[in-house]
Amino acid sequence: MLVKPHQPVEIWESPVEPPTGADVLVEVEMAGVCGTDHHYFIGEVDLPGPMVFGHEGIGRVVELGPEAQTDCVGDPIKPGDRVYWVPLKPCHRCHACTILEDTSLCPHQSPGRFRDPRLTPYATYTDFALLPPGMAFFKVPEGTPSEAVIAFGCAMPTMLHAIERLGEIRLGDSVVVQGCGPVGLAATLLARLAGAGDITVIGAPDARLEMARRLGATSTIDLDAAATSAERAEAVLDASDGRGADIVIEAAGKLAAFGEGMQLVARGGRYLVVGLWSAPGRAPIEPRHVNNTNIRIIGSALSRPRHIHQAVQVARRHHERLPLAEAVSHRFGLAQAQQAIESAGRQETVKAVIEPGRDRT
Amino acid sequence: MLVKPHQPVEIWESPVEPPTGADVLVEVEMAGVCGTDHHYFIGEVDLPGPMVFGHEGIGRVVELGPEAQTDCVGDPIKPGDRVYWVPLKPCHRCHACTILEDTSLCPHQSPGRFRDPRLTPYATYTDFALLPPGMAFFKVPEGTPSEAVIAFGCAMPTMLHAIERLGEIRLGDSVVVQGCGPVGLAATLLARLAGAGDITVIGAPDARLEMARRLGATSTIDLDAAATSAERAEAVLDASDGRGADIVIEAAGKLAAFGEGMQLVARGGRYLVVGLWSAPGRAPIEPRHVNNTNIRIIGSALSRPRHIHQAVQVARRHHERLPLAEAVSHRFGLAQAQQAIESAGRQETVKAVIEPGRDRT
Amino acid sequence: MLVKPHQPVEIWESPVEPPTGADVLVEVEMAGVCGTDHHYFIGEVDLPGPMVFGHEGIGRVVELGPEAQTDCVGDPIKPGDRVYWVPLKPCHRCHACTILEDTSLCPHQSPGRFRDPRLTPYATYTDFALLPPGMAFFKVPEGTPSEAVIAFGCAMPTMLHAIERLGEIRLGDSVVVQGCGPVGLAATLLARLAGAGDITVIGAPDARLEMARRLGATSTIDLDAAATSAERAEAVLDASDGRGADIVIEAAGKLAAFGEGMQLVARGGRYLVVGLWSAPGRAPIEPRHVNNTNIRIIGSALSRPRHIHQAVQVARRHHERLPLAEAVSHRFGLAQAQQAIESAGRQETVKAVIEPGRDRT
Amino acid sequence: MLVKPHQPVEIWESPVEPPTGADVLVEVEMAGVCGTDHHYFIGEVDLPGPMVFGHEGIGRVVELGPEAQTDCVGDPIKPGDRVYWVPLKPCHRCHACTILEDTSLCPHQSPGRFRDPRLTPYATYTDFALLPPGMAFFKVPEGTPSEAVIAFGCAMPTMLHAIERLGEIRLGDSVVVQGCGPVGLAATLLARLAGAGDITVIGAPDARLEMARRLGATSTIDLDAAATSAERAEAVLDASDGRGADIVIEAAGKLAAFGEGMQLVARGGRYLVVGLWSAPGRAPIEPRHVNNTNIRIIGSALSRPRHIHQAVQVARRHHERLPLAEAVSHRFGLAQAQQAIESAGRQETVKAVIEPGRDRT
Repeated sequence: MLVKPHQPVEIWESPVEPPTGADVLVEVEMAGVCGTDHHYFIGEVDLPGPMVFGHEGIGRVVELGPEAQTDCVGDPIKPGDRVYWVPLKPCHRCHACTILEDTSLCPHQSPGRFRDPRLTPYATYTDFALLPPGMAFFKVPEGTPSEAVIAFGCAMPTMLHAIERLGEIRLGDSVVVQGCGPVGLAATLLARLAGAGDITVIGAPDARLEMARRLGATSTIDLDAAATSAERAEAVLDASDGRGADIVIEAAGKLAAFGEGMQLVARGGRYLVVGLWSAPGRAPIEPRHVNNTNIRIIGSALSRPRHIHQAVQVARRHHERLPLAEAVSHRFGLAQAQQAIESAGRQETVKAVIEPGRDRT
Repeated sequence: MLVKPHQPVEIWESPVEPPTGADVLVEVEMAGVCGTDHHYFIGEVDLPGPMVFGHEGIGRVVELGPEAQTDCVGDPIKPGDRVYWVPLKPCHRCHACTILEDTSLCPHQSPGRFRDPRLTPYATYTDFALLPPGMAFFKVPEGTPSEAVIAFGCAMPTMLHAIERLGEIRLGDSVVVQGCGPVGLAATLLARLAGAGDITVIGAPDARLEMARRLGATSTIDLDAAATSAERAEAVLDASDGRGADIVIEAAGKLAAFGEGMQLVARGGRYLVVGLWSAPGRAPIEPRHVNNTNIRIIGSALSRPRHIHQAVQVARRHHERLPLAEAVSHRFGLAQAQQAIESAGRQETVKAVIEPGRDRT
Repeated sequence: MLVKPHQPVEIWESPVEPPTGADVLVEVEMAGVCGTDHHYFIGEVDLPGPMVFGHEGIGRVVELGPEAQTDCVGDPIKPGDRVYWVPLKPCHRCHACTILEDTSLCPHQSPGRFRDPRLTPYATYTDFALLPPGMAFFKVPEGTPSEAVIAFGCAMPTMLHAIERLGEIRLGDSVVVQGCGPVGLAATLLARLAGAGDITVIGAPDARLEMARRLGATSTIDLDAAATSAERAEAVLDASDGRGADIVIEAAGKLAAFGEGMQLVARGGRYLVVGLWSAPGRAPIEPRHVNNTNIRIIGSALSRPRHIHQAVQVARRHHERLPLAEAVSHRFGLAQAQQAIESAGRQETVKAVIEPGRDRT
Repeated sequence: MLVKPHQPVEIWESPVEPPTGADVLVEVEMAGVCGTDHHYFIGEVDLPGPMVFGHEGIGRVVELGPEAQTDCVGDPIKPGDRVYWVPLKPCHRCHACTILEDTSLCPHQSPGRFRDPRLTPYATYTDFALLPPGMAFFKVPEGTPSEAVIAFGCAMPTMLHAIERLGEIRLGDSVVVQGCGPVGLAATLLARLAGAGDITVIGAPDARLEMARRLGATSTIDLDAAATSAERAEAVLDASDGRGADIVIEAAGKLAAFGEGMQLVARGGRYLVVGLWSAPGRAPIEPRHVNNTNIRIIGSALSRPRHIHQAVQVARRHHERLPLAEAVSHRFGLAQAQQAIESAGRQETVKAVIEPGRDRT
């Protein structure tokens, strides 16, 4: 529990309630530590009240409510099955859900759910989670390691959603990814799977860039080696006959990345902005440049249930060939949650997870 | 001829050469006066050398080169036919033409053609124009007034292109158009024809807003009456349950419009930037807002041949029902070209045209 | 109630139950008579058991369940408000809902709902209907006549959905509509609103063709006058320089229409098949023709909630200018339901409605 | 030269003319033997007159016309460079080129070019070919084997075009490919590169299926083992929880494939028809099935210049990792052209090429 920013993280006790209706009770196996958790911790994102951390979870079904029979794609579930969930529960009764058909914009799905632990049973830094009806969760096939599923956490469905909003990546399109945290690594992997041509990843430190190369980057630019924005732009332009990249994906989370990214987009190209959701502030833009080069800037936040399912499928299909599970670089018990969050905040981890069972054994 | 910015416009004499190959010799009936002409005149756009004005033309075929048989959609042409053209001659041999299939980005189509009158036979402030092979021109059906075709000049194909780049306008989408010059009026008309719901036009003076209402605006915001950006934003938000517009189209040509437009886009909405091609400078943008509201910013400049053909078809189909021809508010002879350009620069006209024959009769 | 095909339609009595949870109790003002009702009546579509007719309804809210506060787009509702509904209640827990994001394919939304009158409170041939949570219904703005909303019944959202699946109708695209019943008339109107060029409607009788012309058809082909498929094809080809139509929309409901429609599609064109949902049988197709002319055939059935909302907006926006309300050509009381269905089956009506209150007054 | 169907193929002599204008003279290194050549040979496709075979070529530039400076993407060329071409020369002056912007439908690009050897310098079964201005050819990067480029011949750009017309292959979409000749193998490879999930290839003989597996098929169905259409359908449905494939690609070239393919498409799925361009005849279709399952049937023939460039890039990027060059299973000299065509007709080859230089050395 985080009661106030910068305060020590607390552990609260609460009885496990049996599932009713179509609820599903799950014993948490792993909860992903997300950069967002750190943003809450240091007060960069408003805390709505005492909050249970965690919005990425994988666990085993303990008990089904009397009306719960399948996961959200219609697959039958039973106690013992592993499931993966990212707490998104669209209302299906608002302008975003019904007219835009974009449940990621549903205003009723966040963040009030974190206000009271008794109202937020689906937070994941917990021994047991109660998944209410309408929340998207999906069965994880046996043989697919939990680590491979949670490797990039919510960054994977977020990026699956973002790339869908971007529109098709055409075979051979050149891609630049700004950033190599979980969001950037997910972008790198997905660009590769979609048939991109050159994939250049800009970031640091080298351990993450190494992971980027293993996931599909054809070249990387180390922020330490190419220290200025101009140097990085030159490297990208040189590699593309001066044209820039067909697609630039912002996954850096830093405001300065926006202006730099704009310089890297080729005429007729697209700029996908995904990582700046918690980076307040303004950046200058040259509207004439947007106008005259036929470029598009596409923002994308959060995801829809299908992307969570896709995330499981990506793990299932590619975990043997690609180092997905290796992205889980650090593991903590529930009692070490604060340490986990601080470690992620210092970017020491590729991906950290909380394993609540760790303390119990 | 404009020899240098701010210098008096000159008239040069040059013999009319007979068409060879697939050339088509045309006697100019009307040449549209475009805001761009004024930008050249006052030096806001670089002048590549002595330049013949005019890039919107309608005229009658005088003589066909031996290999010229059809217009660019395959319709047979003969002397006496009226044709419409906007000088776009893509090279079909570059990255933009071949790979992007976006001839509007072809770097070989402008502006060198204006360097020497002997090299720029397709400029339109002239008695006769020679259309070279590969330049898009289209037959104007009898019964369609020339004024209706040239009413918005290159603004119409530019906006047809832009709306295509925007992607579909879905039935009932709310639209805000910033600006009510030819670009804004073309946007208003096309939004209406595409089935938009509320269409709000922001601009001045009232004569242009009145034209906007006749072309499809369901409401207008007078820049004189709603003097501040905040007032205008409030009006748009009030009319949309606080959501903003599904689509905002920048056709104002003023840098300040960009920031204001960004405030008017609804969550999940789109911002189409068309009018800022000659407005240098930077504007602040809040990348987090783009990121978190799933909006898209789409730049668009110039057009492709199909849009010039579409412009003729819009006139053919709608000139009886809509006041297209009335948009031609001022007519000048060749000798008054400077006066025409200055008048357009002062926004006294809705649309001005040069009629070279005016001086001769 | 229809107990068995061809049997007389019966009226059953059942107490009105107060709404619980998020139910909404509605007093039915008008129920649309749909061709589907006739298909059930004559046994062409399987009857799952005794069934209450009607799947198009407009009525006034009588009472709200304690949790019901808004319609499905988030607009507040209160007793006395008029609402429109077409019974579509997707499950949001299946492959179609979650992965395809196409709730129109959700296998759990039909037709079991008709099995028992106590389980089908949202049938519309009834005095009162109980709208359960999750079923799409939308407030009808004051000033919009109920007749204009229900004019084309479920054909309007069906066609809104179909045209969305078709992909964009580009400005000036030529359209042929096969059929001029409610589905064909809705197609005609929507093609016009979307900016189509020539719109040719093929059908009969002339009263319906006259309505098609008023709704946007630029020409009509009377099935009685152009009696053979070859004659009709010739007329369409003649009007398009031999190319055929960019878009052909099948709304005829007759198997023979398919082969004829295929002949009318231009190279690179699209064929939208909407009306054949209850027309069993096979038709010959020439796959090489599909292959070599780059055409697309697009099937579409039913609709999603957004299309029902759009149908209300079409009525709101266009009822003053277009003869939507006039499409309601026949009105019947509940006691005359069988007569209404038979009359629709004989195509004597443009659109018939049941007004349950008619018997009471 | 083929003078008449079934007649022995002849070799004619003709002087090599120097390039003028923007012509490019090329010495042919390899010419692909395409199934179409065999269709001409056996008279299944009309022969317009004595014809030089070959429409797939790779060779070295010998001499440039005075105006020839770049390939069709703007890359500078010089004598000695290798180039790849598929004879497509759109007119840019017809409805297909200008309005549809689909040069693959341009009626002026085929097949009259084969009428006279003196008019068809770009046929490829020849020592030297003269590429006229406007015909798409592209430089092959050093290091990319010629075999990898020509491996699938025109099947590769044809399939690149077809998949573009299909619309996006979404990550994880299941794909069934009917056929494992060059068209089917290209489809398999491209589905893999685009991120498809399960890729099932139906075909024979096993050598081709083995190649399909190496190029990306996750499973194959041998036509000899699963002899009936019902068996094959059962296998596909079993592998997809009874749903069928999201995407079915017809690359079989046999009329019977059409009906079988229709059975394999999932609800909401797409059927891409590419291989039936020379398969005359009719097949039965159930229009109600198309209507009610929201499926789309998409035809596609030929390609546009960008797809030829993409084909070169696919070879460049993937030739080291994938057995592209190995697809060239048979090589012949010019004198053995007839033998090559007959061998391809018997499907003994994966891909055969003519090497004109073979006879000379």
